[in-house]
Amino acid sequence: LAFIVTNEVFYVLSTGSRYISKAAAKAQLDYDYDGPLMKTTVPGPRSQFIFMKQKNKNVGAVNFFCNYDDSRGNYLVDVDGNRMLDLYTQISSIPIGYNHPALLKLMANPNNLSTFVNRPALGILPPENFPDKITESLISVAPSGMTRVQTMACGSCSNENAFKSMFIWYRNKERGHNSPSEEDLSTCMINQAPGCPDLSILSFMGGFHGRTMGCLATTHSKIIHKLDVPSFDWPIAPFPRLQYPLEEFTRENAQEEARCLEEVEDLIVKWRQKGRPVAGIVIEPIQAEGGDNHASPDFFRKLRGIARKHGCAFHADEVQTGGGSTGKFWAHEHWGMEDPADIVSFSKKLLSGGYFYRDELQPYRIFNTWMGDPSKNLFLAEVLNVIRRENLLEEVARSGKALLDGLYDLQAQFPGLLSRARGQGTFCAVDVCDAATRDRILLQTRDKGVILGGCGESSIRFRPALIFRDYHVHLFLNIFSDVLAHNK
Amino acid sequence: LAFIVTNEVFYVLSTGSRYISKAAAKAQLDYDYDGPLMKTTVPGPRSQFIFMKQKNKNVGAVNFFCNYDDSRGNYLVDVDGNRMLDLYTQISSIPIGYNHPALLKLMANPNNLSTFVNRPALGILPPENFPDKITESLISVAPSGMTRVQTMACGSCSNENAFKSMFIWYRNKERGHNSPSEEDLSTCMINQAPGCPDLSILSFMGGFHGRTMGCLATTHSKIIHKLDVPSFDWPIAPFPRLQYPLEEFTRENAQEEARCLEEVEDLIVKWRQKGRPVAGIVIEPIQAEGGDNHASPDFFRKLRGIARKHGCAFHADEVQTGGGSTGKFWAHEHWGMEDPADIVSFSKKLLSGGYFYRDELQPYRIFNTWMGDPSKNLFLAEVLNVIRRENLLEEVARSGKALLDGLYDLQAQFPGLLSRARGQGTFCAVDVCDAATRDRILLQTRDKGVILGGCGESSIRFRPALIFRDYHVHLFLNIFSDVLAHNK
Repeated sequence: LAFIVTNEVFYVLSTGSRYISKAAAKAQLDYDYDGPLMKTTVPGPRSQFIFMKQKNKNVGAVNFFCNYDDSRGNYLVDVDGNRMLDLYTQISSIPIGYNHPALLKLMANPNNLSTFVNRPALGILPPENFPDKITESLISVAPSGMTRVQTMACGSCSNENAFKSMFIWYRNKERGHNSPSEEDLSTCMINQAPGCPDLSILSFMGGFHGRTMGCLATTHSKIIHKLDVPSFDWPIAPFPRLQYPLEEFTRENAQEEARCLEEVEDLIVKWRQKGRPVAGIVIEPIQAEGGDNHASPDFFRKLRGIARKHGCAFHADEVQTGGGSTGKFWAHEHWGMEDPADIVSFSKKLLSGGYFYRDELQPYRIFNTWMGDPSKNLFLAEVLNVIRRENLLEEVARSGKALLDGLYDLQAQFPGLLSRARGQGTFCAVDVCDAATRDRILLQTRDKGVILGGCGESSIRFRPALIFRDYHVHLFLNIFSDVLAHNK
Repeated sequence: LAFIVTNEVFYVLSTGSRYISKAAAKAQLDYDYDGPLMKTTVPGPRSQFIFMKQKNKNVGAVNFFCNYDDSRGNYLVDVDGNRMLDLYTQISSIPIGYNHPALLKLMANPNNLSTFVNRPALGILPPENFPDKITESLISVAPSGMTRVQTMACGSCSNENAFKSMFIWYRNKERGHNSPSEEDLSTCMINQAPGCPDLSILSFMGGFHGRTMGCLATTHSKIIHKLDVPSFDWPIAPFPRLQYPLEEFTRENAQEEARCLEEVEDLIVKWRQKGRPVAGIVIEPIQAEGGDNHASPDFFRKLRGIARKHGCAFHADEVQTGGGSTGKFWAHEHWGMEDPADIVSFSKKLLSGGYFYRDELQPYRIFNTWMGDPSKNLFLAEVLNVIRRENLLEEVARSGKALLDGLYDLQAQFPGLLSRARGQGTFCAVDVCDAATRDRILLQTRDKGVILGGCGESSIRFRPALIFRDYHVHLFLNIFSDVLAHNK
């Protein structure tokens, strides 16, 4: 419980202003605040008061309560009036900051009203402008080799349905045609093969693909996600454990990646022999929940080749990496491939879920009531306009470089505390010596006005919005360095 | 493809006005239209034109394209200006009709802006008013015996997470405490028992609980949902096949229900012996997708007793039945129990998903990025205000009686076409002699200005909004009776 961890709750941080004056950054975004402003430790007394009232609600994971009206740009404001620079952005799901003027303007347009008020069953009765909105938004950022997209409500549903598409595709391939046998038809209703076939999805240790039961069978990042939930006997390959900075360990890392790829092929063969062929391989371009684990473009290109060789579909899960924070709109663009995947799933910064797919993976039988939410696509179209108009991917590349350079400096300065700084764009991370120290540093940094997230065993992940600039980086580095000095 | 089925597309229905004058109903709702108005057959030329442009989109299931700006109350307007009385309401998901003034007003309130623009990660950083909004909305309609609720984005995610809650609860019960063993911890990350235990959920033939992989293992309504997707070896019990009207076949129906209950107990014992104990039983109060199959309150009370006797959790899936259309807010209220279930899941008319749960099923480990959507709860609070202010549950009971009486009349008048009229509130259905005739009648009725849905093998389901009144019933019955006469 977050509010048990921090028990000096009514103590008002008297040195709070020090870090603010040091940062002295001039805000270049007119809708942004010019720095953090801390009135209490977090959670403050008002958050505590709201906690106290929640007798019958599941608030165990709540950090504090927020004032979204007053939050702006890169700054999240809490109910105690604390204004924090947000490098976690609602688990990486706020693309262009809080209350962006472009999105507020969209809300003020009366023509958009009915899209919010009348949520359609998109699969059967879409609004007139839905195809155009999809073309304008999602199709305009379709991954290379893909012109089709299926919208969904969230990341888990996206991956669940992507898996189903791969299974259906694989079975049609096995049959050589699209017509199921009598036995297929009679067995599927009672959960038995061949109608419900013994097929599998190959995933990677440390991967995270969601927490519904199909997704969870491919998720292997934290015990707490999986414990006590029945699962499938599906193969799990090792994800490369690389040494950082990548460019200093190319030989060692190439060996480690070769080892993992070999294991992937062995597992595909083994599961085929077991009678549970691998219909698809699912992987994150950067393992996020699992600790920001990177692999080289060469690894992904070879993995894609292995999938093709063995007739498995290849699914890049870009739920966390997609949307621009790696400096490209999709992290898989760093692989430099014409044909990076058969399926690319997304959610979070894309504001609702879904997946792109190659023509061969036609999801004719993918359906549910809502199939997404047009009001989220309306916002997304505007988010993409802002990204283009303000060249935000270039900004991300620039501020990402400043952030990673800063992390390199800090790990050189505090070698007992920090190691393995790594990242692409602002999608960065650094390891802390142990989990307890990491957790303490996260809380202390928050009390100084910066929100960070943890991932893996003892890593800190950085997930700012796409409007995070150079001067926000320096503001953060000043505060973070003070906290580190305090923990040396 | 809907637009292939109907090929007389540019033909303007000259007799369209006949049914409207016959209905001659005065609209009592000032925001409602006073009747259907058909300008073309459906889909009309403009819908066709939009279809034609969708080269790279999955529009195979789309019926036609809609004009949600012009839709109002009980009437859905399409892009050709056809105005149809909607008894299907986006697969039963529009609670108080289109563009209800109360919801438009909510959108016009600038205080609500930031709830739409800034979607939080509710599990960690909820807005200040979220607990109050939940109390005001969901908690105010909590099922008997339940004071806790977990919000989710959709129906499938709700059921998936409800299943997980039941598994976690069951394993803690088996262990006698909440602390997992070393073996639990080491096996769960690789999908193996005992960490990922061999537990099961008992479901019913004909049931529908969603289409993600966990849910799908409990769904047994249509082959097309399940074919080619791997599943779990979980027990499937028969759902009673009752004779209608229920009150005329009490003895026969009681026998049928006893047979099914006996089978449930046999399956629980059998699966325990197999080493896959039943952690929970999931059932719809009325099987909806599966064909509007009813069972008696006595059946559900006994089933609940069996669950308790064998230590299984009991999950009432009210995704389609919840929200008022049976004449009570929850269909399980018709069972007359103080303690109807351990878990009640919802979505659709509740505008976003979630589930209520008894204290014992604490979902401490249930989590995802969004955990619902506060903008939907904002709407829901207002929907509940309207339901109370306008006594809509009473209205539903009244118009439901008129609808069911009308269906009884029609099946007496057209015994070769219709049979087994049944329903609770406006949640009604009737069987048609065969699937082809049913499908033809659905299209003809639509061309006369009424939207209906199919379910089961050859049933028609009625799912109007809660603002569907007596005079809408008569308007519908007039049109429907003409179509039936045409098909005699």
